[in-house]
Amino acid sequence: LLLIYKDVKNLKIVAKYFKKSIMDSMNAEIISIGTELLLGHIVNTNTAFLSQKLAESGIDVYHTSVVGDNPQRLTAAVKQALARADIVITTGGLGPTVDDITIETIAELIGKTPIRWIKNHVGTVPGLVIDWKEKMIICLPGPPRELEPMFENAIIQCISRARLNVPYAGDGRGSWIIKSRTIKITGLAESVVNRAVKDLLELKPPTTVGIYAKLGQVELKIMSKAKNEKLALAAIGKIEKKIRAKLNNFIFGCDNETLEGAVGKILTTKRQTIAVAESCTGGLLSSRITDVSGSSKYFIMGLVAYSNPVKIAGSGVDIKIIMKYGAVSQQVARQMAKGIRTLVGADIGLAITGIAGPTGGTKRKPVGLVYIALDKKGRTPLVKEFRFKGSREEIKFQASQAALDLIRKNI
Amino acid sequence: LLLIYKDVKNLKIVAKYFKKSIMDSMNAEIISIGTELLLGHIVNTNTAFLSQKLAESGIDVYHTSVVGDNPQRLTAAVKQALARADIVITTGGLGPTVDDITIETIAELIGKTPIRWIKNHVGTVPGLVIDWKEKMIICLPGPPRELEPMFENAIIQCISRARLNVPYAGDGRGSWIIKSRTIKITGLAESVVNRAVKDLLELKPPTTVGIYAKLGQVELKIMSKAKNEKLALAAIGKIEKKIRAKLNNFIFGCDNETLEGAVGKILTTKRQTIAVAESCTGGLLSSRITDVSGSSKYFIMGLVAYSNPVKIAGSGVDIKIIMKYGAVSQQVARQMAKGIRTLVGADIGLAITGIAGPTGGTKRKPVGLVYIALDKKGRTPLVKEFRFKGSREEIKFQASQAALDLIRKNI
Repeated sequence: LLLIYKDVKNLKIVAKYFKKSIMDSMNAEIISIGTELLLGHIVNTNTAFLSQKLAESGIDVYHTSVVGDNPQRLTAAVKQALARADIVITTGGLGPTVDDITIETIAELIGKTPIRWIKNHVGTVPGLVIDWKEKMIICLPGPPRELEPMFENAIIQCISRARLNVPYAGDGRGSWIIKSRTIKITGLAESVVNRAVKDLLELKPPTTVGIYAKLGQVELKIMSKAKNEKLALAAIGKIEKKIRAKLNNFIFGCDNETLEGAVGKILTTKRQTIAVAESCTGGLLSSRITDVSGSSKYFIMGLVAYSNPVKIAGSGVDIKIIMKYGAVSQQVARQMAKGIRTLVGADIGLAITGIAGPTGGTKRKPVGLVYIALDKKGRTPLVKEFRFKGSREEIKFQASQAALDLIRKNI
Repeated sequence: LLLIYKDVKNLKIVAKYFKKSIMDSMNAEIISIGTELLLGHIVNTNTAFLSQKLAESGIDVYHTSVVGDNPQRLTAAVKQALARADIVITTGGLGPTVDDITIETIAELIGKTPIRWIKNHVGTVPGLVIDWKEKMIICLPGPPRELEPMFENAIIQCISRARLNVPYAGDGRGSWIIKSRTIKITGLAESVVNRAVKDLLELKPPTTVGIYAKLGQVELKIMSKAKNEKLALAAIGKIEKKIRAKLNNFIFGCDNETLEGAVGKILTTKRQTIAVAESCTGGLLSSRITDVSGSSKYFIMGLVAYSNPVKIAGSGVDIKIIMKYGAVSQQVARQMAKGIRTLVGADIGLAITGIAGPTGGTKRKPVGLVYIALDKKGRTPLVKEFRFKGSREEIKFQASQAALDLIRKNI
């Protein structure tokens, strides 16, 4: 690694970087308009949304950019985009105030070309679609809650129709689609997942696998580019099978599925109920469980036992056990789990006790030390020790994640 | 509004859009590198972070862009940026794999120019700073947790030093700084805040006010560009005073302050303790209260009373009251608040009952109907009715926000 850096001055760009994408298709460029983006007041989520949707439709994106509310710079950006992309999409600047320059700027550029107005069902400002010299210019409103439905309900169809008019064999362009599936993993470090699927991460297009580490969770995203949906999904299925062969026990769901949703499904199917006693997570675990619609069927009660008297009175912890082992201990976690389960007659009792920090840690019991216990009728109670790292909120989240995973694996 | 759209074909760009910024300064351009950004796999938070930090240092940003892991396109983007900006910052593509093309591409561009390596205290890949033909090229690693400390600890100083070398009077450039303050408001709709401070929102530079609506909260961001920090802060202070004169009761904090933090401060100062019984928020209120370090001093207990038996047994609600008025009612909210307060002997009892949806609503009691009650020793209990809109999670958040604000205003 260090050699690479020291030799940098003599390095030449290697020819292999220039090899063209193996499959050409239509390409789009996204221009976001708004000084508030250039000031960093808001994060540009529109570009990520559009890029993902375009990729899924087989449209390549090679450039995206942001310009302020300045007509000269916007004109230059749109001209440059039109010179290198088939579709130019702008976001923002469509409102009625003087700062909203998109329409005037585009009008100046295209002259008397007809415009298709696209209805906005959420806000007041319509979008527009312009067919201009074999290119397509699309202007969308800035607010994500207006842009997203407009793109999905109307624009994607305009683009699909345009693609049908693109000559196929002649210039090597074809009609391709991209499909993706995200496999969600918890309970393993990124490095461990990386090692387990190393060969898959090195796959080259048309089917690739990417790894993304998030707090308390690792995601593997399989993407496949193919002639049609069926072929793409078949290729994805094959890779998913290989991933599951190695990591199945740690996979809790795909795409939009959540860990709390997965836990909810199992509890519903097995007709089990749960009660929760939390100390350091302070209600976060209960909140995540109840984020799932229909959770009232299996979630009986949550107790946030922040102080020792509440641990004793609320979840039946023996005061002598607290005195002997401390509130953050295996013993207290186990008693809390059993106490909360029997208090309300639930099938499963779950308890968390730990130190979320940033204060309150000691050498023997540092910040991030968390005990999670699961008590089930007629079974030996389970207790696990964790040592999380991060901020107070990050430790809370990781503890709630580990608790949900413990439930998932033990019902 | 409609007239504007109908006449769009004949509209010309109005000269006023072209008027130059009243104060010129150094400007930077940001180029983010990574195919994963163009595929929409990750949201570009680096650009927002850098834009904000640059704005605060008085460096203008007129363009930002994203290119994939492709040396030709990166070379073109860097060349274009060097032609129009004083400072070009790239993010990403610095690692050791074949996809990491930044160093090779930049090396090709600059030839044998010396490079300053910037240490990365979090990851393994160093950043780099290059002085090139009176311009500055800065290459930063892609992961935000590496980029952000590197920028704040080292890069910002490199830039500041460079600014000292910029000729002042000659080309009209000067040394300016930008300061900002965000005033956070809850309990008022955006339109109401808009009307209250309409004149301030129309202010022109050097001091401006922007309005940003978030879930359950409205923010007013005051920005001021001035010769030095003292002048900028004085200008901000003047505007803040005007905002407070109109909205003081609804302002809970500034900048990084949170509503739960504000509540914690007041409870600590007034030496009051609190206990909470939640139904539809499912633990979210307790979790937000305990997000504050030191909350164990004032937060005694949280009860997630998701089912009627728990409401009855746990927070002492009269079964007859539930039968008569229903679990989602003023009466039940009031009994829950009093019950939880007296159960643990807290100074304040807070209760929430409502329908988070998406199912469970009726014509008389629709999704989003929430009652929040506050019970304080020796005072008539307060109950408020709310009708929130949005998804299950959005309704939960808005209810927790309203509850925290009710506490803030009544202790």
